[in-house]
Amino acid sequence: MSLERRHDREFVRTFFTSPTAVEGEDDSAKMIRRAVQLRGMQAPDVWVPDNEDATAPSMRDEGAENIISVISEHGAEFPGEIHPRIVWHRDSPATRYQCFEHLLEIADPEKDAIEHIDGFVIPEVGDIDDWKKADEFITIVETEHGLAEGSLAMSVIVESAEAELALADLREEMGKPSNNLERLFLLVDGEVDYTKDMRAITPTGGLPPWEELRHNTSRGASAAGLIAIDGPYDDIRDIEGYHERMTDNQAKGMLGIWSLTPGQVKEANKSPLPPKTGSWLLDVNGREVELDADDGRYVYDGDDVTLETTGDDRYRLLIGGDERELDGDELTEELLDLASYIPSLNDIVDSMEEFEAAKEAGKGAIAMKRSATLLVDSVEVEISNDRMWDEATYQAAQTPITLFQDVYENRPDQHEELEELYGKDVVDRAMVVG
Amino acid sequence: MSLERRHDREFVRTFFTSPTAVEGEDDSAKMIRRAVQLRGMQAPDVWVPDNEDATAPSMRDEGAENIISVISEHGAEFPGEIHPRIVWHRDSPATRYQCFEHLLEIADPEKDAIEHIDGFVIPEVGDIDDWKKADEFITIVETEHGLAEGSLAMSVIVESAEAELALADLREEMGKPSNNLERLFLLVDGEVDYTKDMRAITPTGGLPPWEELRHNTSRGASAAGLIAIDGPYDDIRDIEGYHERMTDNQAKGMLGIWSLTPGQVKEANKSPLPPKTGSWLLDVNGREVELDADDGRYVYDGDDVTLETTGDDRYRLLIGGDERELDGDELTEELLDLASYIPSLNDIVDSMEEFEAAKEAGKGAIAMKRSATLLVDSVEVEISNDRMWDEATYQAAQTPITLFQDVYENRPDQHEELEELYGKDVVDRAMVVG
Amino acid sequence: MSLERRHDREFVRTFFTSPTAVEGEDDSAKMIRRAVQLRGMQAPDVWVPDNEDATAPSMRDEGAENIISVISEHGAEFPGEIHPRIVWHRDSPATRYQCFEHLLEIADPEKDAIEHIDGFVIPEVGDIDDWKKADEFITIVETEHGLAEGSLAMSVIVESAEAELALADLREEMGKPSNNLERLFLLVDGEVDYTKDMRAITPTGGLPPWEELRHNTSRGASAAGLIAIDGPYDDIRDIEGYHERMTDNQAKGMLGIWSLTPGQVKEANKSPLPPKTGSWLLDVNGREVELDADDGRYVYDGDDVTLETTGDDRYRLLIGGDERELDGDELTEELLDLASYIPSLNDIVDSMEEFEAAKEAGKGAIAMKRSATLLVDSVEVEISNDRMWDEATYQAAQTPITLFQDVYENRPDQHEELEELYGKDVVDRAMVVG
Repeated sequence: MSLERRHDREFVRTFFTSPTAVEGEDDSAKMIRRAVQLRGMQAPDVWVPDNEDATAPSMRDEGAENIISVISEHGAEFPGEIHPRIVWHRDSPATRYQCFEHLLEIADPEKDAIEHIDGFVIPEVGDIDDWKKADEFITIVETEHGLAEGSLAMSVIVESAEAELALADLREEMGKPSNNLERLFLLVDGEVDYTKDMRAITPTGGLPPWEELRHNTSRGASAAGLIAIDGPYDDIRDIEGYHERMTDNQAKGMLGIWSLTPGQVKEANKSPLPPKTGSWLLDVNGREVELDADDGRYVYDGDDVTLETTGDDRYRLLIGGDERELDGDELTEELLDLASYIPSLNDIVDSMEEFEAAKEAGKGAIAMKRSATLLVDSVEVEISNDRMWDEATYQAAQTPITLFQDVYENRPDQHEELEELYGKDVVDRAMVVG
Repeated sequence: MSLERRHDREFVRTFFTSPTAVEGEDDSAKMIRRAVQLRGMQAPDVWVPDNEDATAPSMRDEGAENIISVISEHGAEFPGEIHPRIVWHRDSPATRYQCFEHLLEIADPEKDAIEHIDGFVIPEVGDIDDWKKADEFITIVETEHGLAEGSLAMSVIVESAEAELALADLREEMGKPSNNLERLFLLVDGEVDYTKDMRAITPTGGLPPWEELRHNTSRGASAAGLIAIDGPYDDIRDIEGYHERMTDNQAKGMLGIWSLTPGQVKEANKSPLPPKTGSWLLDVNGREVELDADDGRYVYDGDDVTLETTGDDRYRLLIGGDERELDGDELTEELLDLASYIPSLNDIVDSMEEFEAAKEAGKGAIAMKRSATLLVDSVEVEISNDRMWDEATYQAAQTPITLFQDVYENRPDQHEELEELYGKDVVDRAMVVG
Repeated sequence: MSLERRHDREFVRTFFTSPTAVEGEDDSAKMIRRAVQLRGMQAPDVWVPDNEDATAPSMRDEGAENIISVISEHGAEFPGEIHPRIVWHRDSPATRYQCFEHLLEIADPEKDAIEHIDGFVIPEVGDIDDWKKADEFITIVETEHGLAEGSLAMSVIVESAEAELALADLREEMGKPSNNLERLFLLVDGEVDYTKDMRAITPTGGLPPWEELRHNTSRGASAAGLIAIDGPYDDIRDIEGYHERMTDNQAKGMLGIWSLTPGQVKEANKSPLPPKTGSWLLDVNGREVELDADDGRYVYDGDDVTLETTGDDRYRLLIGGDERELDGDELTEELLDLASYIPSLNDIVDSMEEFEAAKEAGKGAIAMKRSATLLVDSVEVEISNDRMWDEATYQAAQTPITLFQDVYENRPDQHEELEELYGKDVVDRAMVVG
């Protein structure tokens, strides 16, 4: 039997925090009231009314009341899951007790909020034994309020070395009879506090990349059936940087990210979904340059590659100071090595359907062909790329499709935007493949 | 007492899989029959008749029979070790039972194959407790068939987050009286399935680099006296890419790699051996460029470095848009910083002999000198590089020599090619040094 | 209660080893006699008279005597801590017994050295159980010689895969009643021996980067309240390379490094301290280029960025072969994205004071503004960078200040140099902020 957490959503793209009380505002619940009304691509998979860092320490009791008031009123219509973040600290029993009190209050069924709340987010956890303390408080609260044991999800912010180490213990600890850690849901990296806890320094004060932390979080999530989420990207205007971070995360198996604004939510909701149209890349001195599609051809118009015809079936190719004389076959081979293709949703569905048909016909592996005409300095080159697909390739290719299906099933409020983006036909085929 | 696995080979460069049954072929054992007859540099250190992914699910009983038939006939002459891969899955008891049945069948001494088989490869393992289940089946099979307990090696494919975590437990678990995990031999990364298990996505569908997985596998192997092997490189035509991957692996202590063709086996067998001739590299804007040896001088003839004489002992050096005026000493210093040397087998043997002589004469550390004439834009510069060698340097330098010796001792079928490559004299000296 | 080691120093920048006996020298204690008399920036935070690798095996008894003689004479005046390194090996009981004998000898109060010694450095440790053996010897020595249990610090060199794995066990093991592992102090990476133990190979024989080892050491230190130190950088002349290594380490939370010479000590002592003056960087094709400060403006004078005015509020910007036409606002935005600022000690103190004042006035978050005039190809551009500071930003920014304060308190011999470098006013403010 393989390990399974208790909660439903298989993928979470977005973890959107909003302050629950803001000093000096007339209506201190304004920001969570705005957040709970988000819909479609601007609404996150997981919404986190944040009664920890985003709310000043002196405002947290008011924050807890705002959570109750706003969720009891609007929670039923919110399209994603709702997981308030409450206070916690591995080094402070007083903060942990405050957590318990807020839990008891927010989860009180008479206050009509808990029926719309899927779980809670616990920040600043330490060793696995510290995680168990939070789990135990939630268990007590469930019992006190007549909720089923384990029904409330628990997500944690990994922002200390101890918590990173605990990621390796999850699988072993989650099955034990004296805890309810099967309630675990998201493992969220918190790089600002982690940087402090690790005492790291960078010259500009920017955050270190923390490659290993992200790997370990993703691995811990995979081993224990949980979901890994990267921390906030705080240069909100830097959309390109946010995209690069998400692409890097996705290659680590971390498909979700923290969002600080509805604009970031929108980018993050789309990021792990395949693009509408495929594109060809050319590796130019180690950088991947996207070729412009022009009337069925893919055009490189930069200065760093030069290609000319020097005679019958003879070419001169210059890349990065490296000049070569090639015949047509050699040129094709060379460009094939440098080119790569980013498949669209439609391409992936096509390939999966083709492989499924082959499998039914009794074949274990087939070659998938992808052709294109590249245009470099007015020289046209036909390339054709064969990739062998077997069961393992098929299953690895399936991840973005499974994610797409999970999104489509769980987020009816995004149907319209998805169909607008991809076309209804592709969406329908994507929902039945795999 | 330090931990030791039970099996002989200290280094494994190549892990070559071949299908054991191919649908629609007249003689479905053709590919393993061809593989078992490979010799010399085309023959792997470890040959893996593959009855898992490379063989269609419906053909696996036939695959097991082919393994028995081909190995009983040709196994005695095969120059490397033979480790068939059989089916297994951490999440499927039915697949594990199939593993047990194939084991029982292939290991039956009356079928005359097991005497040529060194062990088995178990894919898709999970936690360490899952590894123990496979170990237990092998123990039962050994007892049933009158083989010594622990005599069959067990190698695993690490292709899940759980298995990666298990790498940290090996050292502690291997000594325990209720298992025979000392039979462990190779830890092999399987990046395609690992990517699926981690739910990672890349835009092109290519594999992520999985730096941490490879480090953790290498570390696990080092801690438990085992051997780490990287997974398959499936762009078979891309020899340069295969070499880069191997160089990267070697810097992680992972000296072996999976091969899919005899051509890849040949490249992989040579890769961790030192080169025949030494070469000088120049760091040009962060890229290492190999200098052309020309009549005792090393020539840079690219466009990215410009050097000219501007007066008596005055030079102008231009690298990467950075122009400097230098005198002769400064120029030498600058080029010395940019240059590095890749020693040949002969160079390494020389240095080790020199250090051994110094040690016998009572010295703990000596300077190793390496000089060269560089030629950049027709300006000649003499550089001379001193490196301090102590016992630790000596021992770290010894790794490629120990590997060479291990290869030479275990693979008589490669003697001729090695002596052709390096010359008999260097080979003889390499065999006695250290 | 959070875990605390027993020893005082919160930060260690430098770990300086010197041979304790040199073959053939008239006065074999000459080098440690010179080392113990270092003062100010040339004196390390931790000085390690090295009776292991830096001293020939045949000289180690003499080495131990030299340690006693030099420290009893000069130890009282040495400005840093003193931690001799003695022999140890996880695989050799004979070496471990030699360790015990040297410990007994050096720690004998009648020899007048131990009162100036803060602890010992144990190389070549293995599993955590091996660390406990060394801990136990120190405990026995403490008892034998009437020293308080746990009063001698123990630092280890992490130079094997087993020891790297042990880093994850520290937090759990340190609290146990049957050991005194709370005496642990420094976790020092030893990359030369680690490379040998991992059997890693690089073409030139240079050391691999070992990113994961350094992360795991830093994480282990953070989780257990210890201090992480990187291994030696043996190209002593390569100051730039040493600095790059330290910057890389600091981003991992590893703020200290091994030094082999007083020159390296000086560089390493300064490295984690903020600079005297701030500077602006421009990201040019992925490289960070420092801009020249000139009369209040920051000037880019390289060839890789071209900027010109093409009309009223119209500009042409060319970076890395990428040409864009921009208006003034777009140009500002673009340069703002490419520019980053390295704050000086004074800048950091300013920002912290500003945030502290805001906090007292009841605000949880404020925008920190940083403006500059950039000059690119004679076009002037004003940029202004807002960064949001909250409690977490504040605390992460505090690390270099806390380090500065720790240095200032513990190293009176460096006061003069620090005040010369930064000015007395900034030093005074830095000592009270936070």
